[in-house]
Amino acid sequence: MINYPNGKKYTPTAKKERKTKADISISSANRGMSLEEDINQSSEYYSVNNIALIHKRPTPINVVKVDYSKGAKIVDAYFEKQSTTDYNGVYKGRYIDFEAKNTKSKTSFPLANISKHQIEHLKRVIQHGGIAFFIIEFQIQNEIYLLDASFVIHYYEHGERKSIPYEVFKTEGIKIKQGYNPRLYYIDAVEEKYFK
Amino acid sequence: MINYPNGKKYTPTAKKERKTKADISISSANRGMSLEEDINQSSEYYSVNNIALIHKRPTPINVVKVDYSKGAKIVDAYFEKQSTTDYNGVYKGRYIDFEAKNTKSKTSFPLANISKHQIEHLKRVIQHGGIAFFIIEFQIQNEIYLLDASFVIHYYEHGERKSIPYEVFKTEGIKIKQGYNPRLYYIDAVEEKYFK
Repeated sequence: MINYPNGKKYTPTAKKERKTKADISISSANRGMSLEEDINQSSEYYSVNNIALIHKRPTPINVVKVDYSKGAKIVDAYFEKQSTTDYNGVYKGRYIDFEAKNTKSKTSFPLANISKHQIEHLKRVIQHGGIAFFIIEFQIQNEIYLLDASFVIHYYEHGERKSIPYEVFKTEGIKIKQGYNPRLYYIDAVEEKYFK
Repeated sequence: MINYPNGKKYTPTAKKERKTKADISISSANRGMSLEEDINQSSEYYSVNNIALIHKRPTPINVVKVDYSKGAKIVDAYFEKQSTTDYNGVYKGRYIDFEAKNTKSKTSFPLANISKHQIEHLKRVIQHGGIAFFIIEFQIQNEIYLLDASFVIHYYEHGERKSIPYEVFKTEGIKIKQGYNPRLYYIDAVEEKYFK
């Protein structure tokens, strides 16, 4: 069975389940929501409140055949790999670009799910003066960090183990406060890291 | 027959034909390329040459059903309306956001193809200090202009005829130089309008 490029099976409802038995027993704040949903809800909050304008890029799909007799129904198409990151937008005039990932590992964030294209894209963002980072969720700890893309690029290109130790997030990352609305105060972390 | 949200039939190959008999007889520089292809080619040039990083947002598609027995083939899906613009990215650290349209009218650019959502999106971009504009091609004249989004917003909300006179482009827009590589020197126009 061939899956979605990121290795996960695509769920058409976009409500990806991340609850596991481990999560339920460990995380008291478990809301049964995916990191993606949390970011989208938070971005909506930031947009409505005129704080920042961040959008998730649509998943690129290669459309092969459309049936116009059925109201422009797409009947043959395939997912394509995102060559950029999933999110971008603007905050205080600056260009913002980031990717979000989670891990069940307690000790490190594996870089296997990051593509070479994404790394090249993020290098270019930095080169053009944009703000580039990752939002990484350590599910077991129930901690979410903003880590500047430069660290991810460094470990991707020079790391031996192709993973970033959890300690790097503790020392170099900004811990993102979690709440109800927004669920993730990720712009607070952007403000702290890049505007102070 | 229901068509693609923008009123045009979707061509799966992404090579949209814009050549008409009128074009062929009028435009000596006709290259049989669509404005979208020209922008994509130019963005690629700007990216490779480290001048700017601009991407076209993928068309949002609502995936209803995926057949995993056939290699993750999408068998039921529908096009969704783009709630933002088609292009965004970064130039000199600033956030760039724009929409591209063409018209066969000689005298004005009709706003019928611009959605309320896109206008709201562009207002927010400006509010957050981003650079927002339209790239409009007058096909008969074979002229392409950058026009700041504020003009489009103004005519959209206050114009009686729901169109922007060609003269406004001549006086308030920046004419985009056309060439071979890049096909459209649209970043030159951005530089002239926003960085001088």
